[in-house]
Amino acid sequence: MTAATLTISSKNYSSWSLRGWLLCQMAGLAVEERMLSVDDPSARAELLLLSPSFLVPCLTHGEIKVWDTLAIAAYLDEINPQAGLLPKDAKARAHCRAICGEMHSGFANLRSALPMNLKAHYPGFKVWAGAQADIDRVTEIWRDCLETYGGPYLFGDRLTMADAMYAPVCLRFLTYDVPLDSVSRAYCQAIAQWPALKNWIEAAKSEPEELEELDAEF
Amino acid sequence: MTAATLTISSKNYSSWSLRGWLLCQMAGLAVEERMLSVDDPSARAELLLLSPSFLVPCLTHGEIKVWDTLAIAAYLDEINPQAGLLPKDAKARAHCRAICGEMHSGFANLRSALPMNLKAHYPGFKVWAGAQADIDRVTEIWRDCLETYGGPYLFGDRLTMADAMYAPVCLRFLTYDVPLDSVSRAYCQAIAQWPALKNWIEAAKSEPEELEELDAEF
Repeated sequence: MTAATLTISSKNYSSWSLRGWLLCQMAGLAVEERMLSVDDPSARAELLLLSPSFLVPCLTHGEIKVWDTLAIAAYLDEINPQAGLLPKDAKARAHCRAICGEMHSGFANLRSALPMNLKAHYPGFKVWAGAQADIDRVTEIWRDCLETYGGPYLFGDRLTMADAMYAPVCLRFLTYDVPLDSVSRAYCQAIAQWPALKNWIEAAKSEPEELEELDAEF
Repeated sequence: MTAATLTISSKNYSSWSLRGWLLCQMAGLAVEERMLSVDDPSARAELLLLSPSFLVPCLTHGEIKVWDTLAIAAYLDEINPQAGLLPKDAKARAHCRAICGEMHSGFANLRSALPMNLKAHYPGFKVWAGAQADIDRVTEIWRDCLETYGGPYLFGDRLTMADAMYAPVCLRFLTYDVPLDSVSRAYCQAIAQWPALKNWIEAAKSEPEELEELDAEF
């Protein structure tokens, strides 16, 4: 078997690392995790800018090196199409890619107002109005999918790459106690039961807190 | 033939519309263009935020509706793999997707400091330092590709989706007279000769200037 390594940064703070890692899990690709220290400028940039960088997450698989979360998703689908990272139906597949792309390039206000922090819980957190439009769009996307494909996941009864892309958003909504419609709340709860995700969260919670300084910069 | 429509906004200002349109051209998909007026809130958001929205660009092709530029690219590759939107070699393909993803989610400073404006030319334009890091990363990506695959395009002698993703950046570098290394300059010049792109630019230059108000907001 060709050796695979996934470079990630903080499990507690790095939502892009989480997405890349979940995708590898879905594709059944066993990866050795390589943690970038937050002292590394690339890891800091990724955490502070709340956007993917070209170093995190980064998958090396034999000779292949692929960074960027969506590119990793497409690569994994290519090497293991049976894993179902994309829906089988062409129309659903186009829909799935569209909402993955929307997550990938958008929702900047949501990311900066509600940074991922798996150790924290803020009941009654007051959401900045600028982030509310993003929350409204995310839940619109979810309701549309859940109604069209029947749930419990975005494209029906199997997890797809879209669930990996939106999983950190589910966790943020839980962390910051964001009021949600019942359909969106049920979806967040279903995602929170995803075994791979639960393993990640457990690891995040026991991650040493070397990030006080970084935290203060948010 | 199944009818296809591509929703775009300003040809002069909307870099995401340009990317989506070039991809359709590469895939040989004849599309009817549907122009969103800049008075439309979605078109305004797309232009002012300099980020793709879920309405621009949007491709409808028969029953299929796909928004988001990368999702459009993947869809077009799926319906016409012979068009070569992605390189044939698996390693190059992963590389191509990675740099497309990096363009899709990153370079916010470059976008806001050097917005696309095909009617303009600013010799000696002073680039903000915050955008210079983005310019350096873009040209690093280009040099890496051009040296690895031999040019004149990013993945060799055929245009791929990566060239469509970076084409608006080439045009910005020309508009704002950005100093470039010789390899990157030659690449921008090669892209500027792309016939489809030249057609778009011509249309952009004759676009009515209903955008003074919007322009002032940049």
